[in-house]
Amino acid sequence: MSEFDFICDLRLLTDLDPALGLADDAALVPAQAEVVCTDTLVEGLHFIGDEPAADLAFKLLAVNASDLAAMNARPTHALLNLSLPGTRCDAAWRAGFIDGLGEACAAFGLQLLGGDTTGSPAGLVLSATLFGDLEGRAPWRRAGAEAGQRVCVSGPVGAGALGLADVQAGVTDTAFAAHYRRPTPRLDLLGLPGVTACADISDGLIADLAHICRASGVAAEVDLSAVPLANPAGDAAAQITGGDDYRLVFTMAEGTAAALPADCSAIGRIIPAAQGQPLVRLSGEPAIAAQIEARAGYTHF
Amino acid sequence: MSEFDFICDLRLLTDLDPALGLADDAALVPAQAEVVCTDTLVEGLHFIGDEPAADLAFKLLAVNASDLAAMNARPTHALLNLSLPGTRCDAAWRAGFIDGLGEACAAFGLQLLGGDTTGSPAGLVLSATLFGDLEGRAPWRRAGAEAGQRVCVSGPVGAGALGLADVQAGVTDTAFAAHYRRPTPRLDLLGLPGVTACADISDGLIADLAHICRASGVAAEVDLSAVPLANPAGDAAAQITGGDDYRLVFTMAEGTAAALPADCSAIGRIIPAAQGQPLVRLSGEPAIAAQIEARAGYTHF
Repeated sequence: MSEFDFICDLRLLTDLDPALGLADDAALVPAQAEVVCTDTLVEGLHFIGDEPAADLAFKLLAVNASDLAAMNARPTHALLNLSLPGTRCDAAWRAGFIDGLGEACAAFGLQLLGGDTTGSPAGLVLSATLFGDLEGRAPWRRAGAEAGQRVCVSGPVGAGALGLADVQAGVTDTAFAAHYRRPTPRLDLLGLPGVTACADISDGLIADLAHICRASGVAAEVDLSAVPLANPAGDAAAQITGGDDYRLVFTMAEGTAAALPADCSAIGRIIPAAQGQPLVRLSGEPAIAAQIEARAGYTHF
Repeated sequence: MSEFDFICDLRLLTDLDPALGLADDAALVPAQAEVVCTDTLVEGLHFIGDEPAADLAFKLLAVNASDLAAMNARPTHALLNLSLPGTRCDAAWRAGFIDGLGEACAAFGLQLLGGDTTGSPAGLVLSATLFGDLEGRAPWRRAGAEAGQRVCVSGPVGAGALGLADVQAGVTDTAFAAHYRRPTPRLDLLGLPGVTACADISDGLIADLAHICRASGVAAEVDLSAVPLANPAGDAAAQITGGDDYRLVFTMAEGTAAALPADCSAIGRIIPAAQGQPLVRLSGEPAIAAQIEARAGYTHF
């Protein structure tokens, strides 16, 4: 399959106008494109390289759709920058990649707007830029958290880390491996009343909550015994700090916390920031708190 | 310089709102963002790797600004996806890169909206996504050429190919090398009356004119003796097919051709497409035409 054939097949995922059939130097920005995000996945850093091409394509769009979900925006259009080693990414690989793109476009309501496909002398480097529609809602920002508000998470954390461990061990048929390879952006939570700040968990629950705290000029106290774990019998610290989770961590005004969806959990509270104190303070499980604090990466909050 | 410091320095190139200080999962799409384009530069394919970091940054934004110029849009905002090998791209390299971004932002009227910065186990992979403002103008598309219209080019061609040859020979102080490393998008031609189709010359004059012909369902006849060359004493075929030029090739309605700017040249005419005939037919210099037709890449038109 030549570069030209590949682009022709990608064309099937466009709506032709405003993408103009991928035939121009640029595309028209659709009217509903109110929010934009972009994420790059690099072979050897963000994925191993032996994953099925369809799973890589799906994940590329899913992690960006998760960023839009964290902003309260529904995905509408995508640009792709694909740098592919020609010898490894042969016709079968490319066909699989397009299948995965198509599945993700259908799952998240996306259409392809354009992009750039190049070779790559080394590994795969995959970027997607997604546009989202706020549909009349206000965007959720990281800077909206205030002292007294509840900290919530959209389900058990740790499935991404457990899935990575499974895949690294060659076990690819577990639910955790599926979560790692095909994460589910929480588009069903768009418009949830009372949310004041939000981030998706790509770096880990504690790290991403710290991003909210830093942007908001506040701190957070997390009750570790309230944090739902993907594997309650497994290593809690690894799950609570593990990345690639794509749950949402968010803050809610006090009066609206009763409206929390059934699969979401309140895990703590926003408190005033204090000089010399960590942005995220841990309570409830002293042994686990000590493990989390000992992990590299925790110290820089 | 850590990743965090690098992002803090990039923040100086933003306007904070709608980029939100690069602190969120996504950015708001500015109201004037009507057109979007994206281009990836890969080390070992699109650049050598030993270029000054400032030149790479400048070129990354310049080639994308050229795509917007080809659509009749003025650059306004940029997203960056930078995959950088940590050991090579040290503090001095990153500072140079930010200098080059700043110079390009100032030259093209750009502000940084966001992006993603990652490591890279292999070489540099640099993508930019640029937004442009049509400022009330209609976009120029590749599909607008019609038989009878003139084919024009925005200045001598070949400087990109000559500059690449200079740089590969270790000669970096020529005007051609400067053109190759810091191309000038023709933003001064925005709004030129009478343009019916346009592309920027990244693949070479003949290849990019063929893109216009294919999109428009027409063919073109180019008078090789009318094509202005960056080095009139040099290899004409190499200059006429050379890439990385970032001139504009465009078509103009007959009645408005008198308004062609002084540094632009009419080089041919759009003709009806004919089965089995090349999309771009060459006249005027039989020996040079034969050299161009013999070059790899010409046959697929």
